[in-house]
Amino acid sequence: MQSTRRVALVRYLDGLPQPQDFEIVSEPMPRPGDGEFLVRNLFASIDPGTRSRLSQGPSYLPPLKLGDTVGAFNIGRIVESRHERFAPGELITWTCGWAEAGISDGRGYLARIEDQSVPLSAWIGVLGVPGLTAYFGLGRVARISAGETVVVTSAAGMVGATAAQIARLRGCRVVAVAGGSVKCAWLRDELGIEHVVDHKSAADLGDAVAACCPDGIDVLFDNVGNASVDAMLPLMRMNGRIVVSGQVGDYNLPPGQVHGIRNTRPFITRRVRMQGLVVFDDLREFPAAQAEMAAWLKAGQLRYREVRYQGIERAPQAFRDVFEGRDFGRHLVQLAPEPAVAGA
Amino acid sequence: MQSTRRVALVRYLDGLPQPQDFEIVSEPMPRPGDGEFLVRNLFASIDPGTRSRLSQGPSYLPPLKLGDTVGAFNIGRIVESRHERFAPGELITWTCGWAEAGISDGRGYLARIEDQSVPLSAWIGVLGVPGLTAYFGLGRVARISAGETVVVTSAAGMVGATAAQIARLRGCRVVAVAGGSVKCAWLRDELGIEHVVDHKSAADLGDAVAACCPDGIDVLFDNVGNASVDAMLPLMRMNGRIVVSGQVGDYNLPPGQVHGIRNTRPFITRRVRMQGLVVFDDLREFPAAQAEMAAWLKAGQLRYREVRYQGIERAPQAFRDVFEGRDFGRHLVQLAPEPAVAGA
Repeated sequence: MQSTRRVALVRYLDGLPQPQDFEIVSEPMPRPGDGEFLVRNLFASIDPGTRSRLSQGPSYLPPLKLGDTVGAFNIGRIVESRHERFAPGELITWTCGWAEAGISDGRGYLARIEDQSVPLSAWIGVLGVPGLTAYFGLGRVARISAGETVVVTSAAGMVGATAAQIARLRGCRVVAVAGGSVKCAWLRDELGIEHVVDHKSAADLGDAVAACCPDGIDVLFDNVGNASVDAMLPLMRMNGRIVVSGQVGDYNLPPGQVHGIRNTRPFITRRVRMQGLVVFDDLREFPAAQAEMAAWLKAGQLRYREVRYQGIERAPQAFRDVFEGRDFGRHLVQLAPEPAVAGA
Repeated sequence: MQSTRRVALVRYLDGLPQPQDFEIVSEPMPRPGDGEFLVRNLFASIDPGTRSRLSQGPSYLPPLKLGDTVGAFNIGRIVESRHERFAPGELITWTCGWAEAGISDGRGYLARIEDQSVPLSAWIGVLGVPGLTAYFGLGRVARISAGETVVVTSAAGMVGATAAQIARLRGCRVVAVAGGSVKCAWLRDELGIEHVVDHKSAADLGDAVAACCPDGIDVLFDNVGNASVDAMLPLMRMNGRIVVSGQVGDYNLPPGQVHGIRNTRPFITRRVRMQGLVVFDDLREFPAAQAEMAAWLKAGQLRYREVRYQGIERAPQAFRDVFEGRDFGRHLVQLAPEPAVAGA
């Protein structure tokens, strides 16, 4: 009898993820019932945003139950189907979690991958939730215009790097903030971002960013959290917008230790607007956004970096590595060899 | 030779306003030149928002120069004119400051008072900047809808009380927060606000407000500042809006002592939007808003409370009293007897 493995949460997180918080569970391969299909996953994503569901606090989704599979976005291939609209061999993106296989009834966040002219893993990366967060954060939320100055934090991550490049494609002046010379060199040399600030070598983050923004900041696209927002607020221009895209610097802190935002005067004096987003609110606009981004991708105008781990058992370590900033770019776990795709 | 008095700033404020920060200056009555007119003021407003221009920090306007007249809104009567569009005897609202008289060339924020069926002082109160801040903060910024829950802080002040009443007129469920039993009784008994929270008697502001908002807050109309926003953030509902109308609790604090906003998770999880306003951005919409509010006023649906001081020399004390919360409602200084108006 075939078996399949998944990663279960067995203890709520307290601070950084620990190996003991997770357990690799081996189970018999499930069989699809009527109206269902079985999917073997090729990839599972490692998402910092998942962190908020792994401890017991307010989130946009309730916390996981102990024993549940940790959530993720996946690329999978249908291997057996009793569903009339899905056939074996089809490739899909869906949310199965840190698991080698799973059953679907076709509902929920699930889409057939039609365009195979881009790398498969892009559908859970630059064309998936991280890339779309950048796209809709700059578009629907910030409403960026050509000529504006856009500052992106955690800019070497998948969300940040995509935001920096989209802002540039839209004609904005872009300042990318990242930690360490390797990430900064990648942003400068590989992505060609003109203004890059290394927050690890800067004596004062606000001063370092100010030096790149003589006229101030129109849009802060922030992935870091309160400390970052507080440092940039004094630099905001009239009618400036702060997009709260992520708070990766705050997720692992107990509430009392989270940095407090004090520099709120510009909310009035410069009419600053601060707004968060969860990209699923834009679900109906995904296909159009993905089409625009896929075209940029194929034209070489939108680039990304992946960090791949092999095997589901590596997921907890990959997750921890994201928070420790060991490497940068989209972290994902590969669970099966990639099929050959047209044009590859 | 006639003389006139004004209040000059002679020292930048550090914390609460002190008598020594101001000086009463007596000067010869100015004479209008070509294209100018002389105005004798009947009223000068006492505005907490003026505080930000009386010390050297970022504001939406540069700080005053020492020796300058402290800013205010005024009601005045033209007494001598060499301007072709303004005639002696006409009543105007304008920004002259804490001064008994002044010269205008008709430019800047200045409007003839056409509708004399409402009390004159209303034009620098409920129909002036404080009332309009409430109107546009709830309208353009928060875009309130009937049935939403709106929490208003510093609700016994002119801005807050007007916001609470407009929200109710728009069909919202209103929770008013004020400090002390006198203010709370006025909100409940005089304005008929159903849910009133006394933050001075509440053990925890967030808990006290939560008890009145079982389904959470759609709109926080905040006049207090960071501590207030931080306490309410965990109560915000999906797509909640925070209007940063004033920060009276923070104006007199050194930057390091300002409360930090830590509870920022709901910006993402509940897509909260926080936005400040300065009502002059809505200048072209003032007449329509004032017409709607004047109608409410005459119908008894919009009420307000005034605290009048007599004589320009009382302005510094009145200003300090605003921050100390001695009394509540619109503080203003009366500089000349009110003329009889039609219907009065």
